[in-house]
Amino acid sequence: MQFTKKEIQQMDRIKRLKLINSVSGIKPANLIGTIDGNGRTNLAIFSSVLHLGSEPALLGFIIRPTGDVPRHTYDNIMQNGEYTINHIHRSFTERAHYTSAKFEKEVSEFEVCNLTEEFVKEIKAPFVKESLLKMGMKFIEAIPIPHNGTALVIGEIQHLLVADEAYTQDNDIDLAQIGGVGISGLNTYYELRMKNRFPFVRLNEVPDFN
Amino acid sequence: MQFTKKEIQQMDRIKRLKLINSVSGIKPANLIGTIDGNGRTNLAIFSSVLHLGSEPALLGFIIRPTGDVPRHTYDNIMQNGEYTINHIHRSFTERAHYTSAKFEKEVSEFEVCNLTEEFVKEIKAPFVKESLLKMGMKFIEAIPIPHNGTALVIGEIQHLLVADEAYTQDNDIDLAQIGGVGISGLNTYYELRMKNRFPFVRLNEVPDFN
Repeated sequence: MQFTKKEIQQMDRIKRLKLINSVSGIKPANLIGTIDGNGRTNLAIFSSVLHLGSEPALLGFIIRPTGDVPRHTYDNIMQNGEYTINHIHRSFTERAHYTSAKFEKEVSEFEVCNLTEEFVKEIKAPFVKESLLKMGMKFIEAIPIPHNGTALVIGEIQHLLVADEAYTQDNDIDLAQIGGVGISGLNTYYELRMKNRFPFVRLNEVPDFN
Repeated sequence: MQFTKKEIQQMDRIKRLKLINSVSGIKPANLIGTIDGNGRTNLAIFSSVLHLGSEPALLGFIIRPTGDVPRHTYDNIMQNGEYTINHIHRSFTERAHYTSAKFEKEVSEFEVCNLTEEFVKEIKAPFVKESLLKMGMKFIEAIPIPHNGTALVIGEIQHLLVADEAYTQDNDIDLAQIGGVGISGLNTYYELRMKNRFPFVRLNEVPDFN
C-alpha cells in the first residue's frame, strides 16, 4: 500500500497514530523514574530513549512539555535535575505498560503497578529494582523541536548498573539473555532473539555480494 | 556491575563504545538512501531513527555533521532536501551492515552491497527495493546538539510504502511478519517475535497488580 502525505493527513486519527508510530521500526522499552520535591516518586514508560554519544555518555528521549496533560516526569526532572532509565524485561512488561495510565500526581506508579523502588546513594531519583540494566541520569538540557511542540531531553549517565547475566562471555551486552523487549506502534511488545554479530567494517574486508 | 561517570570516562575506548551503545535498549535498523546533484546514490545504515510525532508525521535521526569523516548522507540531504528511510529485514541484514564501510563518494553502496535502487516519481532519493516498509522524507531541519557536536535531523514523511504482508488482520503493523530486526550496540542484530499486545490504558481499567 502507498500513502501520500495528504492521505496520511486525512487518515482517521487512531489509524494514523498506530501506523506512524510503527514506521520507525522497533523501539526500546524503558521506564523513567523520577521524584518530586516532596519525595513522591513517579514511573513512566517511554519508547523514545535514544543513544546520542559515548563520550560523554549521553542519552535523549522525547517529551511533550506543554499542553493540558500532566507531565509528571518532565516536571520532576525540571525540579531536581535527575532521573533514572530502566530497561523493561519480559517478566514485567505488562506492569510496565500500565504505568501509562493517567494516574493522579499523588499516586506512585511503583505502587499501583507493583514495581519496586531502589535507591543508590549518588542519585535522588528511584531505580526499578526488577530491571537488570539501568542508569542514573543528570539532566543536561531540553532542546525544543518547534515543528511539533515536543522536546529532546538530554542527560548524561552518572551511574550505570548492569546485572552480571547481561554480559556475554566476550564482554558484550546480550539483550536477549536478560529478556529484553522492544515496542512497535503504541502497544505491541516484541521479544528479542540474537541472530548475528558482524565485524566492525573495514573497507578491505567487505565481502563480495555480487 | 556498577560504573560511575568517572569509571565510564576512564574505560578503554572500544569497551566504552560497545557498552554505552547498548544501554538505550534495542534500536531500529534502517537504511537511509540519498542522491547527490550528479545523480550518484548513497546508502547508509542508521540505528537512531526516532518517531517524533504523527501529525505532522515526523521522524528524526542523529548525525555527526562535522569532523574529518565524510558524511555523504548529510551532504546529500543538504543538497536536495530529500532522503528515504527503509526498514532492514532478516533477508538482507548482512548486506545492510556492510554499507557502514567507508566507501569513496564515487562508490554507491547499492552496488557494492547488492541492494536494488527503486524510485517513485514524487521523490528524487532512492528507495531500497528489498525493503517492505519505507518512507520518502522531506528534510525539515537539523537541530544541533551542542553538548557533543551531533545533530537531530528532522524530516516529514511525504510518501509511505508498506507491503501488504506487513499488516495484521486487525490493521496493525507486524514487524515480525516482515522479518524485522533490531540492533544492540554497534554490530549485534536481533530478530523480533511478537509477544503481547496490551490495550490502550484507561485509568479505570488498570489491573490490580498487588
